[in-house]
Amino acid sequence: MPASRLYYDCDTGIDDSMALAYLLASPEIRLAGIGTVSGNVDSAQAARNTLALLHLAGRDDIPVAVGAADPQAGTYAGPVPHIHGHNGIGDIALPDAAPPRTDLDAADLIIQLAHSHPGELRILTTGPLTNIAEALRRDPRLPSLVADITVMGGAARHSGNVSPVAEANIHNDPEAAAQVLAAPWDITLVPLDVTLAHTLEETDRQALLDSGRPVPAALGAMLEVYFDFYLATYGRRCCALHDPLAAAVAVGAVAPTLAPVVDVVVDATGGPGRGQTICDLRGAYLGFPPQPGARCRVVLEAGPDSAAQLLKRLLTL
Amino acid sequence: MPASRLYYDCDTGIDDSMALAYLLASPEIRLAGIGTVSGNVDSAQAARNTLALLHLAGRDDIPVAVGAADPQAGTYAGPVPHIHGHNGIGDIALPDAAPPRTDLDAADLIIQLAHSHPGELRILTTGPLTNIAEALRRDPRLPSLVADITVMGGAARHSGNVSPVAEANIHNDPEAAAQVLAAPWDITLVPLDVTLAHTLEETDRQALLDSGRPVPAALGAMLEVYFDFYLATYGRRCCALHDPLAAAVAVGAVAPTLAPVVDVVVDATGGPGRGQTICDLRGAYLGFPPQPGARCRVVLEAGPDSAAQLLKRLLTL
Repeated sequence: MPASRLYYDCDTGIDDSMALAYLLASPEIRLAGIGTVSGNVDSAQAARNTLALLHLAGRDDIPVAVGAADPQAGTYAGPVPHIHGHNGIGDIALPDAAPPRTDLDAADLIIQLAHSHPGELRILTTGPLTNIAEALRRDPRLPSLVADITVMGGAARHSGNVSPVAEANIHNDPEAAAQVLAAPWDITLVPLDVTLAHTLEETDRQALLDSGRPVPAALGAMLEVYFDFYLATYGRRCCALHDPLAAAVAVGAVAPTLAPVVDVVVDATGGPGRGQTICDLRGAYLGFPPQPGARCRVVLEAGPDSAAQLLKRLLTL
Repeated sequence: MPASRLYYDCDTGIDDSMALAYLLASPEIRLAGIGTVSGNVDSAQAARNTLALLHLAGRDDIPVAVGAADPQAGTYAGPVPHIHGHNGIGDIALPDAAPPRTDLDAADLIIQLAHSHPGELRILTTGPLTNIAEALRRDPRLPSLVADITVMGGAARHSGNVSPVAEANIHNDPEAAAQVLAAPWDITLVPLDVTLAHTLEETDRQALLDSGRPVPAALGAMLEVYFDFYLATYGRRCCALHDPLAAAVAVGAVAPTLAPVVDVVVDATGGPGRGQTICDLRGAYLGFPPQPGARCRVVLEAGPDSAAQLLKRLLTL
């Protein structure tokens, strides 16, 4: 089976950097294009970080499109230096990169790739869904042209991380997320339920640093800041695997162990639930019987060796 | 320690009937008054059911006040005969009861009892919170006069039962619930997380029927309909212990094994999360560190013998 073409939408970000490296190391997919969006950092900085990482990996050939600067409603709330550092990649310095290889914005890059390979393109997102919603607006036929979409975001039974019920990617643009999750395509949602359950530990970080390879070593260095942040969550220096786990699920290298296909709606009100991914998990006692019309596979659990598998692949890059 | 005075607010209901019987069998409390509200049945039918059960138990002395017919916003949506039978008590017939011993409505009964025994009165609710919110409106000093309040309702990490996130008692009057949960008193919330985890089984129902005692036998008979309904939830004939478990927690006979004190707000928007109890459980990985100002104890787990303890007490009545 030839490698699938994958479009990756991100707000690079330390864990987006890990996801990008993971994708570059994945034989199951061919990275056909990348778009950036404002989230962990603004979309322009996210593009700079992405280009620098691609350059470090010797992959200047992959087009990187700058995407939306602001969410659909309101303006970008700003970066989160206490989580990702001031530059989004843990304040490490990377060599200067080549300029972007496309003049398209992210939404148009998605549309171009989808039309070039109808029915084949796969999408992975690890940031707010602003670009995807914009692509849907520009071309409502998009879902019929795309094979599937994997979204890191939301929280099902687990707490949120920016409110008691909302996760950051969804909360940063709930209107866009509501549109993307309501569109008629097969979606895999990778929420906090599973991404917080799998961690990289200090020994893993040391393995990246000691790898003698530029990309893993850069990841190990930028994780310093990220590990500091997660001390307040876990009570130890380590980190959740949000974006790389979504990448591993998207390419099929990590198989979910519990992932019911259920109805999911996004709370886009101005109320206390704003940004929540409301997943209909009422069938839990019966093992989640089919829900007619449901198209969203919600990854609730993955095997206990997921983090180890993930690290192993990162070390091959 | 003398028995505490308890006011019980209910929408009787099969599981409210179990809770009422449980309270009558509980030496820890003295049932000082009961108010009814529209939920499982309308507030007038709930009063008839309550009076009939009290009469069967030989407890015509307890005042029963009819409460609000409609929620704060809109009108009562009607009973749920597929769950509780057409009369709310599984379509069994009980002997005619005495008329109510109070002319007060439920909100005024609460206020009267609170003022008669300042700082002593405890409150348990197993229906929508309409009466409690109305009592708060009539007398905003109420929280300073009441010892504590235990509320069966809501869903924290668990799915809802009338929407993916909303439980029936809260969803039937979210505005009232929002006011009650925001008031400055010590609240214990007993949500679906724990009440769905503890069940009465067919052998337990048979024990009630075979008891040779009028109230347990009546409960066993009315559970026929309730067990039918729960077949679709559990895949077997049995029932959840929503209201009686809340009663057992309120009187202190069942001790929660996991019950963090956290911030809780109710979604009273018109959005997809309407009626959700949004509990801030973000401290889970750290064992729920204290949240300054939080006053709501959310019961997430209780011991595995909770149902057996509960049945045992019901059989003493």
